[in-house]
Amino acid sequence: MKTAIIQMPVVNDKRANIEYACSQIAETARTGADMVVLPEMFCCPYSGEYFLRYGEADGGPAQAALADIAQKTGVIVVGGSIPETDDGKLYNTSYVYDAAGVRIAKHRKAHLFDADVKNGIRFCESDHFAAGSAITIFDTRFGRFGLCVCFDFRFPEMARIMALNGALAIIVPAAFNMTTGPAHWETMFRQRAVDNQIFTIGAAPARDETAPYVSYGNSIIVDPWGAVAARCGGEACVLTADLNFERLNGIRDQLPLINARRTDIYEIRAL
Amino acid sequence: MKTAIIQMPVVNDKRANIEYACSQIAETARTGADMVVLPEMFCCPYSGEYFLRYGEADGGPAQAALADIAQKTGVIVVGGSIPETDDGKLYNTSYVYDAAGVRIAKHRKAHLFDADVKNGIRFCESDHFAAGSAITIFDTRFGRFGLCVCFDFRFPEMARIMALNGALAIIVPAAFNMTTGPAHWETMFRQRAVDNQIFTIGAAPARDETAPYVSYGNSIIVDPWGAVAARCGGEACVLTADLNFERLNGIRDQLPLINARRTDIYEIRAL
Repeated sequence: MKTAIIQMPVVNDKRANIEYACSQIAETARTGADMVVLPEMFCCPYSGEYFLRYGEADGGPAQAALADIAQKTGVIVVGGSIPETDDGKLYNTSYVYDAAGVRIAKHRKAHLFDADVKNGIRFCESDHFAAGSAITIFDTRFGRFGLCVCFDFRFPEMARIMALNGALAIIVPAAFNMTTGPAHWETMFRQRAVDNQIFTIGAAPARDETAPYVSYGNSIIVDPWGAVAARCGGEACVLTADLNFERLNGIRDQLPLINARRTDIYEIRAL
Repeated sequence: MKTAIIQMPVVNDKRANIEYACSQIAETARTGADMVVLPEMFCCPYSGEYFLRYGEADGGPAQAALADIAQKTGVIVVGGSIPETDDGKLYNTSYVYDAAGVRIAKHRKAHLFDADVKNGIRFCESDHFAAGSAITIFDTRFGRFGLCVCFDFRFPEMARIMALNGALAIIVPAAFNMTTGPAHWETMFRQRAVDNQIFTIGAAPARDETAPYVSYGNSIIVDPWGAVAARCGGEACVLTADLNFERLNGIRDQLPLINARRTDIYEIRAL
């Protein structure tokens, strides 16, 4: 399964961002991609003043454009995330469309990024957003995937539950920053892959040093042995990798980290 | 709290290994260490032919020597691990002694290393050992610690439960090999530290390229931000670091990975 990440610049123009994303998806589809992943907040600058203004309800224009380009190109589109408006609340929501343009998943970010790091990043996402309450898994003709947004992936419970429920890869539209990115980004994607013997896919916006929130970029795809299959820097780019899901079973046979869990001495479960 | 790891060579002579460990503990104590950690199987080569022969029951000579040196030097001794014989079974067991020489913890490795990596390491620990069934935590005058042995630390559930129960650091006598060490060792110690916002301490035997099982070495101490506080290569050495547990609370305030867990949507617990 050929997977591509569009590490795209995000500008102060929702329509322009959507057009850029769709044109990149179309171009990537022509190179043979089966699935294309966009970053967190791909059509909205990551800043409090934009979230509501760039938000949309279920079925809004960003979603319609993604469904349309998925259907036109025949690729699965994991639509990063957008601000979703619902009943007076905002959510940081990821929508997924299959190759026929049918919506097959919707995940509302469940862990909001409220951090205040000394001499580093300060952001309080819960000033703007409400949190979702689901662990999201979806099926495709290639197999089962887990889907979460950025800070959700910080919590090993969510990834573990996805893997135990059969996810072969976890897709994470995300936007780490220049504090947490260099410190934690790659290690997190590698260790979640090793622990759960799955592929991990992190899709970030390109870095813009002039933005209010500077994305670390460094979109990444890691294989189930923890090896980095593809990774870029801060620049706008398309990152691709072939995911061989048979490798996953081979690794699980050789080093049985899933089967050797001591389910008689601890338990982890979705509530 | 000044912590030291004795990354020691392990030879085919139980008594010589114990004497080496004790002399190193005494020397390290003179430099002001509060706690000294030995590697997995510190007095027994990691090979099937030695485990039973070098094993001992509760109260055996290796344990007596460690209790004695802890009491004489006034340091906490985390005694790596030894083969423990009990009721016709063998366990891979770690004993801990406080600064008065009193045994304060005993952990039997609960996840046995049964791996057969293509073109890499092959070992079936369960051919030799029975598995423990406990998650082990102990208290000292410096605070609370988690203790597990090598492959136990592969399973994020055990570390998470230790941290949720108040462990400030997790101590892991271990012996990764030349297949899994370069691929997984540092990433695992760093990510467990970041996820749980604790210190992680990995103590390995020195590398001996002529041994039947070649230890990767690379003993390591990681801080709660995921930064490597100390690390060595394959050589025999003493690795030290000061653990500042106030740093742990500072990091948890700045980036609330423990408090922001969504305990309404997932649950992890010891059984």
